[in-house]
This record gives sequence, structure tokens and C-alpha cells, in this order.
Amino acid sequence: MAKKSALLLRNATIVNTTPGGTFEITPKATIDIRDGRIAAFGNKSATASDRAEFEVVDLGGRVVTPGLIDCHTHLIYGGSRVEDFEARLKGKTYREIATSGGGISSTVQATRQASAAALAKHARARLVRMAAAGVTTVEIKSGYGLDLATEEKMLRVARSISGTSGVEVRTTFLGAHALAPEFSGDKKGYLKYASWVMMPELARLGLIDMVDAFCEGVAFDAKELGGYFDAATRLGLPIKAHLDQLGDNSAAAMLVSYNALSVDHLEHLSDASIRALSGSQVVAVVLPGAYYFLGDTTPPPIAKLRAAGVRIALATDHNPGTSPLESILLAMNMACILFGLSPAEALRGTTTHAAAALGLGDRGEIAIATRADLAIWEISHPAELSYHIGMSPLWARVCGGDFIHAHIS
Amino acid sequence: MAKKSALLLRNATIVNTTPGGTFEITPKATIDIRDGRIAAFGNKSATASDRAEFEVVDLGGRVVTPGLIDCHTHLIYGGSRVEDFEARLKGKTYREIATSGGGISSTVQATRQASAAALAKHARARLVRMAAAGVTTVEIKSGYGLDLATEEKMLRVARSISGTSGVEVRTTFLGAHALAPEFSGDKKGYLKYASWVMMPELARLGLIDMVDAFCEGVAFDAKELGGYFDAATRLGLPIKAHLDQLGDNSAAAMLVSYNALSVDHLEHLSDASIRALSGSQVVAVVLPGAYYFLGDTTPPPIAKLRAAGVRIALATDHNPGTSPLESILLAMNMACILFGLSPAEALRGTTTHAAAALGLGDRGEIAIATRADLAIWEISHPAELSYHIGMSPLWARVCGGDFIHAHIS
Repeated sequence: MAKKSALLLRNATIVNTTPGGTFEITPKATIDIRDGRIAAFGNKSATASDRAEFEVVDLGGRVVTPGLIDCHTHLIYGGSRVEDFEARLKGKTYREIATSGGGISSTVQATRQASAAALAKHARARLVRMAAAGVTTVEIKSGYGLDLATEEKMLRVARSISGTSGVEVRTTFLGAHALAPEFSGDKKGYLKYASWVMMPELARLGLIDMVDAFCEGVAFDAKELGGYFDAATRLGLPIKAHLDQLGDNSAAAMLVSYNALSVDHLEHLSDASIRALSGSQVVAVVLPGAYYFLGDTTPPPIAKLRAAGVRIALATDHNPGTSPLESILLAMNMACILFGLSPAEALRGTTTHAAAALGLGDRGEIAIATRADLAIWEISHPAELSYHIGMSPLWARVCGGDFIHAHIS
Repeated sequence: MAKKSALLLRNATIVNTTPGGTFEITPKATIDIRDGRIAAFGNKSATASDRAEFEVVDLGGRVVTPGLIDCHTHLIYGGSRVEDFEARLKGKTYREIATSGGGISSTVQATRQASAAALAKHARARLVRMAAAGVTTVEIKSGYGLDLATEEKMLRVARSISGTSGVEVRTTFLGAHALAPEFSGDKKGYLKYASWVMMPELARLGLIDMVDAFCEGVAFDAKELGGYFDAATRLGLPIKAHLDQLGDNSAAAMLVSYNALSVDHLEHLSDASIRALSGSQVVAVVLPGAYYFLGDTTPPPIAKLRAAGVRIALATDHNPGTSPLESILLAMNMACILFGLSPAEALRGTTTHAAAALGLGDRGEIAIATRADLAIWEISHPAELSYHIGMSPLWARVCGGDFIHAHIS
């Protein structure tokens, strides 16, 4: 990692994406970076007078994209869920496992028992591997604690590992992930505890950037979540929701009314919900890793979302139960293969639209004054980012202005 | 890489698989390795008198499996096929692309034009990445030359890169991959050239370990391939075939009659063909990467193959057109998720059965006198090898007795 007040990338092939879902390629470009932000970029060379203070890196024509953003992960947890995996291969459904003591509950137990140090060690290793796929920002959710002490532990770990391998972490409180065992049979009571005890305290501690809920038959109904979202709004915290993964919950309109950042999963999103999202600023986040891992056969309605002008992002949804996927590049490949996104849409879904899904206006595009988060690739065409399966052609990243070489093997 | 006449691995959790498709786990074991072979293994400690000449490595309880074997790859080629990928995402089928100048033909052109040095450079990089997933043996096919000079160039490159990162390469002549442009309209003439000119000459040069053919509607019919397989048999070369990927070719019985090592792909394998394979020594090699990448919806008949007692192997099928997949671990994951193999069957499919698909009796199991090819993993249960998506928990490999640490990031 090299630090200098200014960095000049020369001989870059800059790749952005357009709202229409195509690549916008600028060859033979320079990118001037000062104080961690992009000061200038394009085909014109930097002014000679500035050269002395610049660290200069010649990219030899390599492709430069915005640093990739993984906008939906459950990266911090104890244990694994390899037993659930074997159970599913023997024919059990996710719903059956979830309602029979496996599923999220087992991860909640393991996460409560794990020390902060152990959680941090594993999560850090995951961040390092995610960085190897060109990631510079990762969202991490709580939600495997379901009590104040563990939710706080998870979120403190998330804050503490921010910056690992140059990856910035954004935190999301997911108290409404599942019913805490202490509140068995009392969803209302648990949601009050989450909304009136956990959320304000964790917000006061500065540990929450966003609030998320698992709005699904196996978890919480939209109408049960009103108070929880109201609490977030009172605290000034933006909202997102897991939605319509296992069935149609008809809750998209409600999320629009809360000016949600995003609704995520969406396999069973109805036409009415698409109409509700159309024209709103809510981003549709699709999660092909979970779709793949669960053997789903109903993909999210990508063509309809596209036609409705809804911005589509995608993410790994890394979690031990339904998406033990760590590579954002593989998520992009799956979004193309399984959901029919184009390679340019997949890149936009992990840059511009992923930034929007996190409410971050300062990154996701190579543009003047944005944060200098970049990924530099050993490829000849940007579609290759979605084409390869199970390998990363990353050459280097720039993270907040710092140049970080990839470990090329 | 450390070399010594003898290596003693202590505190290993040895994992083999059984013919019935379960894990066979031996905890707290030692593995004694001499002259590149396994001299002894099990719960008993090594005899004290031998200790001095041994390099000793304490594995701290880590899981040790046979080194993984990727028994079906097209690893050496020029160019990429990212344009085909984009065409397919716009709705073109593999068959349409293959019959309209794209597909294999474009790779043949690029491979003919590429220098041996360029081919070797890219293939070496792929081998290094494959090694990072625990691979110790890789099969590589020719078949992107379709003329003597290029087929020889490919096979010489394959031989020359054997040993990269400790990975041993086995070579397969795939002259009958597609019709050479010089023989347009004359399949019979091309197969004679492949059988009577290329195959004997490349065999004489010692470049061929096995012979393969693409037996499929878009390539060659079973009845057209008789002379080609006869030529291989005369040269004493074992046979395998790409079969029933795009449709039922009813050729399995013919391959059984040639004592083929394997038949590969098998999405459209008929019940009659399964009966023909049952009781034979022919291995069924399934290739979930191509199934996934092509968006196929008819998986190979795994349950029927299992019931018929046919040994099932699996591989990456790495190739630029239909399976740009480099990770054997991801192939195992896909075989479980998409085809319904159990994690133990997936491991057996990349060890014992993959060795059989290559006619190699000296590897694929941790057993006395087998080649000391091992993979050592940072996992707590062997099912984790198939559970993770897009990451490798490899800690080290032993390749022909040499201990090679993985690059842990």
C-alpha cells in the first residue's frame, strides 16, 4: 500500500456504465487522484507542473472500473451451516430447516457464543478474500444476535474491521431478522424490543448506518414491521428490506412509502409491486447466490424491472445458511447466467446501483470528486468480469486514493 | 516447496470416501511418505527410528484428502469467447453460435495463430489457479488445432507445463473435436486425417496419453467415429468421449465395447445407455460448469447412474466457450447443487473416480503405495469442500511427496 498526497494513473482504459445498461469505455486515459478523491480524468494528460508531487503508475492499457461494492452481506457470524447444506441435499427445504431448529437459529446460537475476537478473525479473512475480487466497499448486517449484547458485538466487529485490505464497511442493523428465542410466540414483543431498546441504543453508540428487516412469511409480515420502520425513521436511519424471496409479500409499496434505499431478493415480486417501485428511488437488489444455493427456479422479474426503469443492483448475500458465496465476480456471473442481466448491467449493479442501495453518493462511478475507489483488471474487455467463473483477474485496487496491488499468483 | 527423502505428516484428519458414497474419516492420524509414495498411514505413530530422516509437519488436526484431480479440461487455447457469452445472453443458443462461425471455430483460429510461448503462459497461470483449489493432477485435451502442427503445439505445451505448481498434466488427443475448416463438407476425410496422420504421429512423439472425441449432433456421430476409435485401439491408447450433452446419441454401448475410460457430459443419456454402462468399467464424468454456463435445464440422470452402480466423476470442463470455470471446488459445489450429488460423492468424483476416468491406478485415494498427492484443508468437516462458493480453504498440498504451502491471504 503506497500513500502519497496525489496519485496519477496513466494509460488506463476507463470503464463506466450508462443508465441504459451499456459500457462506456474511455481508452488511453489518465486519472488524477488527490486527497483520496478523483480530481480529473479522461484522455487529456495531467498538467506537467503537477507531476512532481504525484505518484505515477502506468497501467499499460489495463481496464479500470469503479471499485466493486457488495451491498448486501451477512459477513459476521459464528459457526458454519454445512449441516443444513447436507440436509437440503437430502431433500429438506429451507423452510423446513428454518422451522425445525436449524437455519438462522443455529447461527444465532453460535454467534452469541463466539467471542468478538473470533468473529473478527473470520470476518477479516472473508474481507480479504472479497477484496481479491475487486471489492472496495462492503455492507455488513447484524441480525445473528437478536439480543442487545450480541447485536452490539456484531456491529462493533463490523466497525472494527472496516479498512481491512482497504475495504470500507457500512453497517446495517437487522434486528428484525428472526424471532429471538426469548420471545418465542411473541413477535410483537420482540419487534418492540428491537425498535425501542436495541435500535435506539445501537444508534446512540454510532454503530448503525442503515436498518433492514426480513419481510417474509417465515419471519415478519409487512404489517408487523410498521413500528420497526417508524423507529428507524425517527432515528434518521435509512431503511431497506429483504422481500419476496420465498413468496409474494406485497410489501414493496410500503417500502416505497418509507423512501427505502432498497428492497432485496425479489424472486416473487408481483406486478403490482413493480408498479409501486417504478418511478421511486428504491433500488431492486437481486441476490443470485441464494437463488442458486437454494435451487430456486423462479428468478426475479428482471425484464419487468428493467422495463419499469427500476435500478437493479446485485450482491453476494454472503451468509452461512443460504449463500456461502464470497466472490462478487461470481455473483455478477450468476446474475448474467441465471437472471439474464447483461455484463454491463451486472457491473452497474455492483457499482453505481450498489452505491445507491447503500445511500452512498460519493462512489460507484469514475467521476470528478467521487471517492477514489477503483479496481484495475487484467482483461481485454469489461464483459470478462462476468464471464470467468471462479477466478479473479484483479491486478490492483485503489482504495480511498491508496494504491493496493493484488496478490497475482 | 521442500524436498526430502521422507515426509511425516502428523496430527492429520484423513478423509477418504467409500464406494457407497460416504466419508471415511480417520482422526489423529499420521501419514508416512517415502520416495513420493505413501509408505504408511493411520492412527499408529511412525516408528521412532525413522524420525531423523523425516521432514515432520504437524497438521494440527487439519483435514487431509487425496489431491484433487480435474479429469476433463480444455486448458490450452488462444483468445477468449467473451463475445459468444454476450451473444448467448442476448438469446443465441450454443448450437446457433457453433453453426454460425462462432463457437469452437473461433478458438481454433486463435489457437492456430498463438505462439507456443503465449499458450504456455496463459495455461500455466490457469494451472497455478487450479492448484490453489487443491488440484494435483489435470487432464488437458488438444482439439483447438485440427491440423497436425497446431495439435502438436498444444500437446507439447501441455507436456511442458506439467509440474507447474506441482500439478501433473495428462494429455488427451481430441482431434475429433470439430471439423477442420480445410475439410469443410468432408467429415469422413477429416476423420481419416485425424486417425491416420495426426494420431499416429503425435503418439509416436509420445505426446498422447488418451484419445477423446466429441460425439454429438453438432460434431460427429457414433458411427462416423468407429475408424477413429479403432486407430486409437491399434496404437494402444485408451479412449473417452464427449457424449449426450445436447441430445441422446445412443453411443454409450459403443464406448463400452471399446473399454472406454469414460463418457463425459451425459445430460441426455438414455435408459438404454445407462444399462449399457452398468457393470462396465466406464466412468460417467459429469460437467456441471458447462450445464450451468449454457443454462441447461436437463441434468444428467444421477440417481439412475447411482442405482446402476456406475462410477461418477466430475470435472471443470474448463474451456473458453462453454465452461470458463477454473475451480474444481466450485465444480463440486455445482455438482451437489445442480445435479444432486452428495458432498462425499463430489469428493469421490474428483479423487478415486477421476483417477479411474484417466486410467490412473496410482492416485485418487490415500492408500499404501499410492502417489503422495494430498490436499490439506482449513475446514472442520469434509462436506465444507462442496459447501463454500467461490473460495478455497486450501492450506497446503503434497505433490508427489513434495510439501507445498498454499498462499493463504
